[in-house]
Amino acid sequence: MSVTAAAGFEAAGVSAGLKASGGLDFALVVNRGPLQSAAAVFTSNRAKANPILWSEQVIVDGAVAAIALNSGGANCFTGPQGFQTTHATAEAVGESIGVSAGDVLICSTGLIGEQLDRAKVLEGVIDATAHLSTDGGLDAADAIMTTDSVRKTATVAEGGWILGGMAKGAGMLAPGLATMLVVLTTDAALDASELDAALRAATRVSFDRLDSDGCMSTNDQVSLLASGASGVRPDLDQFTAALRAICTDLAKQLQADAEGASHTIDIEVVGALTEEDAVEVGRSVARNNLFKTAVFGNDPNWGRVLAAIGTTSAAFDPYAVDVSMNGIRVCSEGQPDQPRDLVDLSGRQTHVLIDLKAGSASATVFSNDLTTDYVHENSAYSS
Amino acid sequence: MSVTAAAGFEAAGVSAGLKASGGLDFALVVNRGPLQSAAAVFTSNRAKANPILWSEQVIVDGAVAAIALNSGGANCFTGPQGFQTTHATAEAVGESIGVSAGDVLICSTGLIGEQLDRAKVLEGVIDATAHLSTDGGLDAADAIMTTDSVRKTATVAEGGWILGGMAKGAGMLAPGLATMLVVLTTDAALDASELDAALRAATRVSFDRLDSDGCMSTNDQVSLLASGASGVRPDLDQFTAALRAICTDLAKQLQADAEGASHTIDIEVVGALTEEDAVEVGRSVARNNLFKTAVFGNDPNWGRVLAAIGTTSAAFDPYAVDVSMNGIRVCSEGQPDQPRDLVDLSGRQTHVLIDLKAGSASATVFSNDLTTDYVHENSAYSS
Repeated sequence: MSVTAAAGFEAAGVSAGLKASGGLDFALVVNRGPLQSAAAVFTSNRAKANPILWSEQVIVDGAVAAIALNSGGANCFTGPQGFQTTHATAEAVGESIGVSAGDVLICSTGLIGEQLDRAKVLEGVIDATAHLSTDGGLDAADAIMTTDSVRKTATVAEGGWILGGMAKGAGMLAPGLATMLVVLTTDAALDASELDAALRAATRVSFDRLDSDGCMSTNDQVSLLASGASGVRPDLDQFTAALRAICTDLAKQLQADAEGASHTIDIEVVGALTEEDAVEVGRSVARNNLFKTAVFGNDPNWGRVLAAIGTTSAAFDPYAVDVSMNGIRVCSEGQPDQPRDLVDLSGRQTHVLIDLKAGSASATVFSNDLTTDYVHENSAYSS
Repeated sequence: MSVTAAAGFEAAGVSAGLKASGGLDFALVVNRGPLQSAAAVFTSNRAKANPILWSEQVIVDGAVAAIALNSGGANCFTGPQGFQTTHATAEAVGESIGVSAGDVLICSTGLIGEQLDRAKVLEGVIDATAHLSTDGGLDAADAIMTTDSVRKTATVAEGGWILGGMAKGAGMLAPGLATMLVVLTTDAALDASELDAALRAATRVSFDRLDSDGCMSTNDQVSLLASGASGVRPDLDQFTAALRAICTDLAKQLQADAEGASHTIDIEVVGALTEEDAVEVGRSVARNNLFKTAVFGNDPNWGRVLAAIGTTSAAFDPYAVDVSMNGIRVCSEGQPDQPRDLVDLSGRQTHVLIDLKAGSASATVFSNDLTTDYVHENSAYSS
């Protein structure tokens, strides 16, 4: 049920003609209250798209009445004209639903360096407003898809309140830049600072641990809007746990649908001195092209795992490390252990377990393999 | 003429049966003096192969009498048994040519995590010693090739002294881990500390600027041996310039032969506040899979350049940057400039010029595209 599972929200997804395919490409999500508290996290890339520059200002006061999202264009590195398109979109949304433009978040995804067709976007606002409905969550989820092969939504219901969400993207998506757009909604009664704390705690161990191809987008945005319509004020720890669960669910959906991928790769690092070390080590494997191509070839090449983690600054002795792949310990204390032939990589799920033997912290990074399809899909557009 | 161009050096390349193909796989280079001064630089990966662990000790006193190199196995993460193989190789070389094992550098390249066949290596030492010759440089250069399609050598002659060298590898080489092995020889009369200063200055702007796929090897080694046989003591600045030239020549040969690549990509960064900033920015582009696949598809996708450099900590304003590709300025001050259709990427050479407008420092990083052939070649071995 996506972003309209929680009470107090309406949504729509329409075709504004931004996508050459003519499919749904403009989504609008409106919070009818009574609360309009919100939190959001954005790409840490210094090269930020215009909707990011806009939304970073909108979120400052913690009040959001609506969020408009378009596929078919990133509106990034498009200069003042591009920023004016974002601004005009927010103004149009504000006018159409009777709120301040300063309470409207904007998200875009698509090609960098090309102007969005402002007239089409503004028509999209009018059309979407006309189609707003408490059943519109699925259309909205469809409208933000680029080359996603499936719509991504999730819902959690607990103790009188509901949390729902939609997502698009993940690395290895063409023709985007690995852009991830996520909108989460809840009818729980929480203020903006509570939402912010919960959202940062949840994204840190879910979306922030998704590393498909190491390429950071200019447009990533994860937003959480609360209507308070349930009248229930949940325990914040309980809410955070539910939020973490739904974010992990959506992150795994993004990982599973990463285009071109033939394997998901979960890299679990244990025995780290700190959680930061564990993440750094996991990420170094997730970004190692040689290891990722080996997995594509069903080759349990653990030497490439060790070569990757040797480039990190994490605390461990490279010659003490154990590495297992899909349950077979192929490397023990930096030496060959079980025969690599025992490792079965023929399925889609790949689990790499790395024991650093340096402490008790752990983390899992979610990735996928590097395939010929990835290269094809990312080399074949806009030309 | 490779490593035997300079007076005082003998070399050989033989087949020790380490490569399944039966081709040349063991090389020996001997410095007959009168000097035996040397310098070397090694991979900065913390996961170091046994020959690296050995050679790092050998080079401490700046005296090297010989260097033995094998393809067909990296001898990395092979534990005490692997280290003993390296040690035994150095002992055998020392015995066969009458020098201390502690003056013998060892290099290996091939698969990580498998034992080298020690008996075969030791037979290789005997065979290579029997074949040592002042004409052996080309055989030696052949013996260190893995999937290199061409032998890589270079020679410079100046004012009474000669500098020669051989190289193998570069990123995107299967079945290796991007291992780069380079041996440089000169008959100039220079001591170890002079060689060390010159080698570090030369590699810093040549081999260290080669970034094929971002994957750091466990086995990289660049060695410089001086025999003094010319009796000429060159000006150190002049020698360093010649060394820089030969290292750049060999680096460009490695870049040109990067397997699977269909384009070389020279990323020139100008207007940087510091040279370190310029290198960081160039490297971020060299390692961006999305940009590298776009070049493979002849797509001048400058948005991916900006998205890549936005992840760095270099000093610049992302919205002030200019980007040109093969002479066409596609982005000016963070906005679209000339039409991307004007950029011709149909040839092999690709030049990306990034003006950060933050200072006057510059650097060029040498890279190549990410292709379906790269994925094929690196996914299809050892399984």
